[in-house]
Amino acid sequence: MAMHNDSAPGETARAGGEDRHLWAIVPAGGSGTRLWPLSRAARPKFLLPLLGERSLLQQTISRITSLVPPERILVVCGPAHAAPVARQLPDLPEQNILIEPAPRGSGPAIALATAVIAQQDPHAIVGSFAADHEVSDLPAFDAALRTAVATARDEWLVTIGLTPTRPETGYGYIERTDEVIVATDDGASYRAARFVEKPDAAAAAEYVASGRFLWNASMFVWKADTLLGEVARLLPDLSAGVTRIAQVWGTPGQDRIAADVWATIPESTIDQGVFEKAPRVAVVPAQFGWSDVGDWNNLGDLIESDGSGNSIRGDHVQSQTRNCVVWSETGRLIALVGLDNIAVVDTDDALLVVDRRAAQEVRRIVEQLKLMRRESY
Amino acid sequence: MAMHNDSAPGETARAGGEDRHLWAIVPAGGSGTRLWPLSRAARPKFLLPLLGERSLLQQTISRITSLVPPERILVVCGPAHAAPVARQLPDLPEQNILIEPAPRGSGPAIALATAVIAQQDPHAIVGSFAADHEVSDLPAFDAALRTAVATARDEWLVTIGLTPTRPETGYGYIERTDEVIVATDDGASYRAARFVEKPDAAAAAEYVASGRFLWNASMFVWKADTLLGEVARLLPDLSAGVTRIAQVWGTPGQDRIAADVWATIPESTIDQGVFEKAPRVAVVPAQFGWSDVGDWNNLGDLIESDGSGNSIRGDHVQSQTRNCVVWSETGRLIALVGLDNIAVVDTDDALLVVDRRAAQEVRRIVEQLKLMRRESY
Repeated sequence: MAMHNDSAPGETARAGGEDRHLWAIVPAGGSGTRLWPLSRAARPKFLLPLLGERSLLQQTISRITSLVPPERILVVCGPAHAAPVARQLPDLPEQNILIEPAPRGSGPAIALATAVIAQQDPHAIVGSFAADHEVSDLPAFDAALRTAVATARDEWLVTIGLTPTRPETGYGYIERTDEVIVATDDGASYRAARFVEKPDAAAAAEYVASGRFLWNASMFVWKADTLLGEVARLLPDLSAGVTRIAQVWGTPGQDRIAADVWATIPESTIDQGVFEKAPRVAVVPAQFGWSDVGDWNNLGDLIESDGSGNSIRGDHVQSQTRNCVVWSETGRLIALVGLDNIAVVDTDDALLVVDRRAAQEVRRIVEQLKLMRRESY
Repeated sequence: MAMHNDSAPGETARAGGEDRHLWAIVPAGGSGTRLWPLSRAARPKFLLPLLGERSLLQQTISRITSLVPPERILVVCGPAHAAPVARQLPDLPEQNILIEPAPRGSGPAIALATAVIAQQDPHAIVGSFAADHEVSDLPAFDAALRTAVATARDEWLVTIGLTPTRPETGYGYIERTDEVIVATDDGASYRAARFVEKPDAAAAAEYVASGRFLWNASMFVWKADTLLGEVARLLPDLSAGVTRIAQVWGTPGQDRIAADVWATIPESTIDQGVFEKAPRVAVVPAQFGWSDVGDWNNLGDLIESDGSGNSIRGDHVQSQTRNCVVWSETGRLIALVGLDNIAVVDTDDALLVVDRRAAQEVRRIVEQLKLMRRESY
């Protein structure tokens, strides 16, 4: 599988669906600690070419530009990543790189971007898409997005939820009701029943078996005024802050006021802060080869493998080795003997060897290194 | 355990047992392919400081110099290793580095060295000890050697055999009879019944249970004329060849004649070529913390481990990791997550990751690289 959206051939076949009020937000946050030592604070997951020649961010932007032109796409990132984002996306207008002074979670980032968009287009419909996810089936992605937009027009906050393919305990889930909101040839949306944080293995298995639970992939669509109305009701401090910043956005006072206001805004996520509490929340069930490219086990599944299930990037020899992942950046020869289900990540200053079943635990190494003040890693 | 013979404290307590006719041969051959990528053709196992500050060769010489002075120790090696051997052993007289023009197995190497010794001392008693093994209990080693020497005086070809501590399938075995040849306070020697090549797992388990089988550690003692007489009888071509070379050893014609003669000598091992066929072969059962330091699993057992059984040389962090071996030569940070029983060997141009249970298979990688003509590795 993988890498469909690294080249453009699929795009000619995709529905244009051009809507002048359709905007997109791409929050480019998180450092991807589970993909250490490849991803680092200065070189987070979204900037890395993990699946093909282009970075996950470039692939994300490419995926949405058939529906939304670069002028209506806002990338939200931290100050340290503004320069690489600008260079990786030469077609994106400079003012569309929205720099949040400090990370405050998805709530402030997305609310601010929506407020900035609403200043320019009060009738905007806004989709939000993480910068570091993979989608392999673009027509199915477009169809789900069209259904989500149709639902959002009627003042719903909409999520696109992925039909689970395994009892994953690393994701949040969305339970849907049977109440259909919109049904078209492209698919349907349903009123959401509830959002559930990462479940244990038994609950995850139940969710998958029920057929009513979907993976929360942090893909959202709303009318700008619908979202801003709910933010005003549920998170009034955040609402006041982003309104103040949006008013001065593009003026000389922008950076100073943004910094001042940001310092007073508490952390929140858009899921827990707004979607879990709002009255009109819908979900569009979809399947389009989605992955969050979250850890080395996951990434191994997305890289083409040889006949023994080994997914390998780099010079290597092997003997009696199956289901392994190798990612080498050093050009060194990697030899694997008698291994099953091991990932090896070889970078200039650090080497990781991890059992794929423990791939989520790689973040503990990053935590340890932070405690040891070994911040160069 | 390990590294007792890296420093000299044990030696003061060791029996001198000075015998002016006692000589030693140290065949320094083999490249140690199972310890790739640390050991290479140009830097074989015996030249590496695997257990302590000094190389296995230096430790081997140090172990025997309490009984045999450097003037009576001959190291046999290939041309490529003469310079590093000379530098690692500054006390060894230059003419005691015996260079075999090409590898022909232990038979020619040991027969030639014995013939060269016999030229200088017709009454020589000669012990032969591999250059790349580990011995941790020196007094027990000395005691076994004294028993072997006492047995060899009476025209026996003697081996020192190690009481097996596990059903190892990677070693050859020696079965003993109940016929005692020599019994002293130091121990006893027995007539050998037979030599067995590497057995399968079931046979190895039987051997260990029987109490009559010993590991063949390629440690031999004989009177020079006893061995040379058996070589003349069993391997007449080899006998003629080494006699010819020994006659001109130390003269200007030495290298030319050695090269000419060597080209005509067939490969043989001293075990199969002589000991398995000779009539008076004895074995001294012994236990002195012996290891052939054969592969990464083995070496891991000899390196001190932390509370989780991890034996680690190099900068590292770990999480949920047990019984692993890390050997790093690069200074890079090595991170291990969720691993059990894995060895990681990190060198400048090559990285090995191997399940310790498959450590013997590392030689397959070296074979593959040879077939691929990647000889720089």
